[in-house]
Amino acid sequence: MSARVGVDLGGTKIAFAAVDEQHRVLTRSRAPTPQGPEAVVDAIVEGVRELDAAPVAVGVGAPGPVSGGVLMTAPNLVGFDRPAPLAEPLGRALGVPVAVENDVTAGIIGEWSAGAARGSSFVLGVFLGTGIGGGLVLDGRPYRGAFGGAGEFGHMCVRQGGALCGCSRRGCIEAYAGRASMEHAIDVAVSKGRTTVLTAIAAEKGKVRLTSGVWARALEQGDPLARAVFGEGIAALAAGIGAAVNLLDLDRVVVGGGVAEKMGQPLVDRIAEEVQPYLLLPDVPRSFVVAELGDDAVVVGAAALADVPSLTLGLHPT
Amino acid sequence: MSARVGVDLGGTKIAFAAVDEQHRVLTRSRAPTPQGPEAVVDAIVEGVRELDAAPVAVGVGAPGPVSGGVLMTAPNLVGFDRPAPLAEPLGRALGVPVAVENDVTAGIIGEWSAGAARGSSFVLGVFLGTGIGGGLVLDGRPYRGAFGGAGEFGHMCVRQGGALCGCSRRGCIEAYAGRASMEHAIDVAVSKGRTTVLTAIAAEKGKVRLTSGVWARALEQGDPLARAVFGEGIAALAAGIGAAVNLLDLDRVVVGGGVAEKMGQPLVDRIAEEVQPYLLLPDVPRSFVVAELGDDAVVVGAAALADVPSLTLGLHPT
Repeated sequence: MSARVGVDLGGTKIAFAAVDEQHRVLTRSRAPTPQGPEAVVDAIVEGVRELDAAPVAVGVGAPGPVSGGVLMTAPNLVGFDRPAPLAEPLGRALGVPVAVENDVTAGIIGEWSAGAARGSSFVLGVFLGTGIGGGLVLDGRPYRGAFGGAGEFGHMCVRQGGALCGCSRRGCIEAYAGRASMEHAIDVAVSKGRTTVLTAIAAEKGKVRLTSGVWARALEQGDPLARAVFGEGIAALAAGIGAAVNLLDLDRVVVGGGVAEKMGQPLVDRIAEEVQPYLLLPDVPRSFVVAELGDDAVVVGAAALADVPSLTLGLHPT
Repeated sequence: MSARVGVDLGGTKIAFAAVDEQHRVLTRSRAPTPQGPEAVVDAIVEGVRELDAAPVAVGVGAPGPVSGGVLMTAPNLVGFDRPAPLAEPLGRALGVPVAVENDVTAGIIGEWSAGAARGSSFVLGVFLGTGIGGGLVLDGRPYRGAFGGAGEFGHMCVRQGGALCGCSRRGCIEAYAGRASMEHAIDVAVSKGRTTVLTAIAAEKGKVRLTSGVWARALEQGDPLARAVFGEGIAALAAGIGAAVNLLDLDRVVVGGGVAEKMGQPLVDRIAEEVQPYLLLPDVPRSFVVAELGDDAVVVGAAALADVPSLTLGLHPT
């Protein structure tokens, strides 16, 4: 038995999983995310040890660009405003090789190793959440880019001069398809007197935010405002996926994240249909599929990092 | 001495060059492009033989997506509306390995082997012409995509629902920055009573079309309409390059083609400046440079194909 431990370092919690060689999760745990690199390293070391899995390797998915085992910046983590080495101190403390990768890249590696991207060599993963994440497998290898910052699909501009994005730029895909942006669009419309069932459904479900479940229910009920805003999101996603496919000639697009899990393959089929008119090479066997691993994608992908030769830069052999 | 021959198969002419191991052009020739795959194969065989260079390998840059030595389609070539095997019959006739690649990809391989992309592993090549071509080197290897169709930078959508492109889609980069589109925008403005020095400069130079030289002169003279239309082109290019860099985290962008050769690095600096606000990782050492090889990029890159391991699919060993 040679388990690996995959770690998903998030803004509020750290998820740990011991994963076997067939990418199956054996055990899992969680811990709150502390503030600052040192405390985070300590929390990861403690969490890995407490799993008691005697791992042969540890992989970490971290929320920002990663280069050579260093988390360059992480807007969602407190105290990570400058480059923070993670692989090196973790490897030293744990006594096994530690690889660190961007969390969305780890997620697509998870789907590629054991989920919806299995068997493909040219994959875009799109993860729909508060923002829009992206990950790439190109030419049969996870793709990280020159400075570990690849995969910012959500910040491809599809409407120059368009809606303001959370990143302060205009016309990004995320400015239309991110859950935060869609919620903002609803707020603006409601403040102008438009009505929607979204807020009532949220209240009924006891939610402060418009969660994926709230959106799914409102769309099922045919709420016109929800449909319009969601439709703009799909349109922006389709233009962006079309642009990525034209640039990269991908053969698979995996769509994941909360709303994709809620709405499943029918949502992905709708996106695929709207992508089609953008494609310069439409008559080739490309598939558009919903992600399979859900929240486990990052831990499974992080655990698989030790097996990915092109990521050995992130390895710290002790 | 072991020369390779590089072939640039274009819509009206075929260019041939014998190239040495240091990527220097030794001799060159041209022939008109005949109609249909058989005649094109014969013309290439004859042109290669007439160079009298005794090549150890031949590479061909072809104007369309290429997969496994087969030109899948080529809208600018007569009689190429279905997949046409090129590497195999050429290899048989010439008795040396023949690799076939998309011409823009061959061009960026040329710049990467011996020009402005030398030393970089994450490159986007943007070629400004009648249309807008694109080529990629990713992770230190020329990138072809799942079906040989990668690099369609010009047909990334940057303005959903925007200007009509020659490809019949809307909002493509090429719909703003392609020379044909810019000329169309000028025609439309003039038909509405706007004035411009562009037509007078073209007439003076004896040109029917608005060539790169005509544009360069009108911009130098500060022609307001030329500036406005050209500015829209630059803006679309900047949004598209920004999108590509955010997705792929590139470290070099090479800009080539007629107008780039005419206007040089100042044009590329202007594009780079407009790209900057789109970039999520702005503070890393990326360079934006003008292409160096001009019309030779494709023949030099095609000649280098034999040295590119990832392209051996296109090789036909005889």
